[in-house]
Amino acid sequence: MSSAGKSGPRYALGMDIGGTHLRAGLYALTAGRLERAPSPIASLREKVGDQRSPEALCSRISVILKKLWLSAGLPESDFNVSEIALGIAFAGMMSGHEGHVANSPHFGWRDVPFGKLLRAELGKSSLVILNDVNAATFAEFEINPKSERNDILCLFVGTGIGAGAVCGDQLLLGATNTASELGHVKVAWGEDARLCACGRRGCVEAYAGGVALQSRAQRELADNPSSLVVALAGDISSIHPGHIDQAAAQGDIYAQSLYSEIAPLLGLALANAVTLLNPDMVVLGGGVLDNAPVLKEKALEHFREFVNPPALIGLSIRDARYADSAGMLGAALFALRSSTL
Amino acid sequence: MSSAGKSGPRYALGMDIGGTHLRAGLYALTAGRLERAPSPIASLREKVGDQRSPEALCSRISVILKKLWLSAGLPESDFNVSEIALGIAFAGMMSGHEGHVANSPHFGWRDVPFGKLLRAELGKSSLVILNDVNAATFAEFEINPKSERNDILCLFVGTGIGAGAVCGDQLLLGATNTASELGHVKVAWGEDARLCACGRRGCVEAYAGGVALQSRAQRELADNPSSLVVALAGDISSIHPGHIDQAAAQGDIYAQSLYSEIAPLLGLALANAVTLLNPDMVVLGGGVLDNAPVLKEKALEHFREFVNPPALIGLSIRDARYADSAGMLGAALFALRSSTL
Repeated sequence: MSSAGKSGPRYALGMDIGGTHLRAGLYALTAGRLERAPSPIASLREKVGDQRSPEALCSRISVILKKLWLSAGLPESDFNVSEIALGIAFAGMMSGHEGHVANSPHFGWRDVPFGKLLRAELGKSSLVILNDVNAATFAEFEINPKSERNDILCLFVGTGIGAGAVCGDQLLLGATNTASELGHVKVAWGEDARLCACGRRGCVEAYAGGVALQSRAQRELADNPSSLVVALAGDISSIHPGHIDQAAAQGDIYAQSLYSEIAPLLGLALANAVTLLNPDMVVLGGGVLDNAPVLKEKALEHFREFVNPPALIGLSIRDARYADSAGMLGAALFALRSSTL
Repeated sequence: MSSAGKSGPRYALGMDIGGTHLRAGLYALTAGRLERAPSPIASLREKVGDQRSPEALCSRISVILKKLWLSAGLPESDFNVSEIALGIAFAGMMSGHEGHVANSPHFGWRDVPFGKLLRAELGKSSLVILNDVNAATFAEFEINPKSERNDILCLFVGTGIGAGAVCGDQLLLGATNTASELGHVKVAWGEDARLCACGRRGCVEAYAGGVALQSRAQRELADNPSSLVVALAGDISSIHPGHIDQAAAQGDIYAQSLYSEIAPLLGLALANAVTLLNPDMVVLGGGVLDNAPVLKEKALEHFREFVNPPALIGLSIRDARYADSAGMLGAALFALRSSTL
């Protein structure tokens, strides 16, 4: 068969559609593959804005495909959507493996057949839509040299807590594509367990997620305005997890007492996941962990105490290497992986 | 290529080497495959006995291969170890994917290159050695019709607590082959957390594993001989988890109070694993669960309370279908899967 024949995609396009921003990158393939840490030949970043209906988003994606093609300097006459491996990282809960969105608070979507709509819009059957945390995980996985990666676990602590895993070289998606929901493992139970935004009690996100941490500190420090946390933030309403961490580093009683409660819980959730999955690499990222080195260090101490010791052998722990581009790149990489299976 | 050429194995042999018994079964393949719930054409079950050195075990395995071949009525002149897919389920902790045994208390082995020794003994490079719980999991997975299985989680509560998982059609082994150690996820911490046989505190096995449960009840009931548990057992030293369960069913205060402590912990460990792995099937087995219907039911109530609700959608829960033959069959099936990759 000639190499100009039915030889797979020549480009990969990854798009990360988050709650506020949309990012997209077009990547050129070499012999059907992407290099290890590729740069896009064209990219864009724009606000999602108010037009959030499924139909509006689908036609916008179609426009972006063409726009990136042209802005990469590629001839319009060569534009062929079937030669582009397309991956979409979406801030929502998926259901099944065809791009059905079960729920996306950011978009106000419930039970939207996003994949079906997008395939119809583009006239393209092969595309992948995946949860944004899974996409970021896949980017963090693929950046490692082949010899160093088979099993990784990524933990992202930002406004919420998300995770993704690759097990035996495969992204862990689960039967209905809701695997790796580490934010909602229970680390406490009973009526005293904290209420999570998901409606259940005792999720680790209700303790160590950024939004939970911030609102709790703001509430509790309203009666304790002399805390260093408040001084660092300027005022109660400006407190964010970074201030708590700085205060903990400087010996603030409130911050240290808060950490003595939540660091073990975060360490526990991570330890139990590593005991189950036995990855060779744990990747830590997200806005809270990036800005809370004291919390990260304390959580890792507890992690080492709680994890099944054999699972520590050969385990490396590193920070996430991609920040905002992880979802976009991971979606492109996953689309490429799926198109060449 | 002629079908008489290099066309893969014609037989599969699975062996389950446990702490007390060894079971082996020889299976005939049809077009290189096993049917869904196959019967061996020859099988044996014998005591492991005292000869437990790696060398003794390797030569015994070699003898068993030939013995089963002959007892299946196959001609001695046709015996060819390269035509037999060989899988060994072993009661020990593996390290890596080449059959290295990190630790087996049953055999008194530490850091034994079992796979290497066995390959040399048999003059056969392709064989698989896997943890016995993983082998049993693979048997429970393969018995399901193809349409119903991609992601399963098996929880076995016997003397200890073991688990195995198949994720996206692949047995979850982990980077160093110590994945799925559900018995050692922590469900309690701090100095009050119960000490586990593994040396750490707070493992779910230290609460709900059969040995832990039995020794705790025997110890605690020494001061409480009027409990129904003791009456059912006859005497303190005969108490086993089945008596506790019968007593709980009949309203015994001690048994009910014990269950109100441990059933939530068992439910929690299972729930958090399902939240992470999102299987479409949970399989429950092992001596304790088989004989403790009240504990199972209560643990499942807590499981439903603690699990991430989307992971319940489409989830089925069933009892293990294989008992003692699961390891042997699973090892044969996994060897076959590995030989045809």
